[in-house]
Amino acid sequence: MNQITVLKIGGNVIDNPAALTRFLTAFSALRGDKVLVHGGGKIATQVAEKLNVPTTMVEGRRITDQPMLEVVTMVYGGLVNKQIVAQLQTLGINAIGLTGADAGIVKASRRPVAAVDYGFVGDIQEVDSGRLQSLTSQGLVPVFAPLTFDPSLGTLLNTNADTLAQALAVDMIRHNDVTLVYCFEKKGVLSNPDDDNSVIKQLTPDVYAEHKDAGSINKGMIPKLDNAFAALEAGVKRVIICHADELGAALDGAEGTTVTLG
Amino acid sequence: MNQITVLKIGGNVIDNPAALTRFLTAFSALRGDKVLVHGGGKIATQVAEKLNVPTTMVEGRRITDQPMLEVVTMVYGGLVNKQIVAQLQTLGINAIGLTGADAGIVKASRRPVAAVDYGFVGDIQEVDSGRLQSLTSQGLVPVFAPLTFDPSLGTLLNTNADTLAQALAVDMIRHNDVTLVYCFEKKGVLSNPDDDNSVIKQLTPDVYAEHKDAGSINKGMIPKLDNAFAALEAGVKRVIICHADELGAALDGAEGTTVTLG
Repeated sequence: MNQITVLKIGGNVIDNPAALTRFLTAFSALRGDKVLVHGGGKIATQVAEKLNVPTTMVEGRRITDQPMLEVVTMVYGGLVNKQIVAQLQTLGINAIGLTGADAGIVKASRRPVAAVDYGFVGDIQEVDSGRLQSLTSQGLVPVFAPLTFDPSLGTLLNTNADTLAQALAVDMIRHNDVTLVYCFEKKGVLSNPDDDNSVIKQLTPDVYAEHKDAGSINKGMIPKLDNAFAALEAGVKRVIICHADELGAALDGAEGTTVTLG
Repeated sequence: MNQITVLKIGGNVIDNPAALTRFLTAFSALRGDKVLVHGGGKIATQVAEKLNVPTTMVEGRRITDQPMLEVVTMVYGGLVNKQIVAQLQTLGINAIGLTGADAGIVKASRRPVAAVDYGFVGDIQEVDSGRLQSLTSQGLVPVFAPLTFDPSLGTLLNTNADTLAQALAVDMIRHNDVTLVYCFEKKGVLSNPDDDNSVIKQLTPDVYAEHKDAGSINKGMIPKLDNAFAALEAGVKRVIICHADELGAALDGAEGTTVTLG
């Protein structure tokens, strides 16, 4: 079976040029096929501010009205995505920068308005796996900005990068052994949020449930881990959560958290 | 021989949402393989102004310093490119938005500093034709932002969209009968710049030379026509210059200017 690694890097890596270069250098050295998904980072907020587009956050999530959709299309789909592509090309990786709209790869639907209207935010409906497979089979390394496309509304949608990475990973299982890696600014999933060295080496559903009950795993880590377990249940072989600087060691099992079904 | 049409739309079309929608609708109806190249438009200047990035023009050309390169990467590579992709996807066209950096398709070198330092501006060195052909053969419609990539400097470069369209058209001649179309805000090449109806139906090198000598063809039309003749000399079958609203009629020979070697 072909090996493929789907990696997601978060905003903290993107916001730090030196950390981003370190990560991309390690990424470029990984063997086998690979797909990169990047988050947005603070640049969108900074650009929005200068463009007089107000940023509204509800429970840590950005409300994406029409002007903000234009900002994230510029910043995620243009600036961040193409700068990563240029860096990877310089490192000898034949990267191709995409949003979910490109080649119709990720179709989504605008999230229905419930308690909160998140605006132009998408829930993924369908991944065109033949298309993604065709790109990776040609030796290309797709780099995805966290934007998808709603064909019925004809609009781009802002989409959570963790969820996008999970959907792309699950989509690739038909033809590949898939490893999904979430890289961020911590050394892994921590048993004590105040102790950066309290990394849980193996996280099973039971251990996860205990830590959730105790409150030691909380906030943004919960949707990330829900995505991780959903990926495993759908057939992804391995999910790793690690520091962006420890990518190689984490893939060898020496660092980070390996999420398993037990 | 496979038929392919490479079309370039300029900033005036992009700056007018209704005109852009009309053009994209006509574009989506064209038979055969196609490639779209878009210019930048005034949005980059407007965004730059709001971001306090000064715009410097020398003889109608933008000076691209590092902050301006970031602006055009955002606006051309992100906002304009992805909005066109989303519109085409909505029209049932499987568009894929690219810069020259993506999949390493267009390599360029930074223009040497002569009388003027244009900054991060690229002269095209090489098009990876196998790659472009592979995308169009898969039923994809590449949509290019006017950005290329310098592998030795590791940077994106701002690149003239007319020249990019010409280079892509020439590159495709090995496997295709190629038609190159420059769409803009005039009805064609005019024999009298003050008379919008003075369209030259057939423009040969001799007629071109006469009009250049007389000054009736001048300014921005000269590099566009130099690109057109260079394309024909390199093996492109047809070059048409027409109004963005007259695409269908121009391809039928009823409107616009057909540039020929005589």
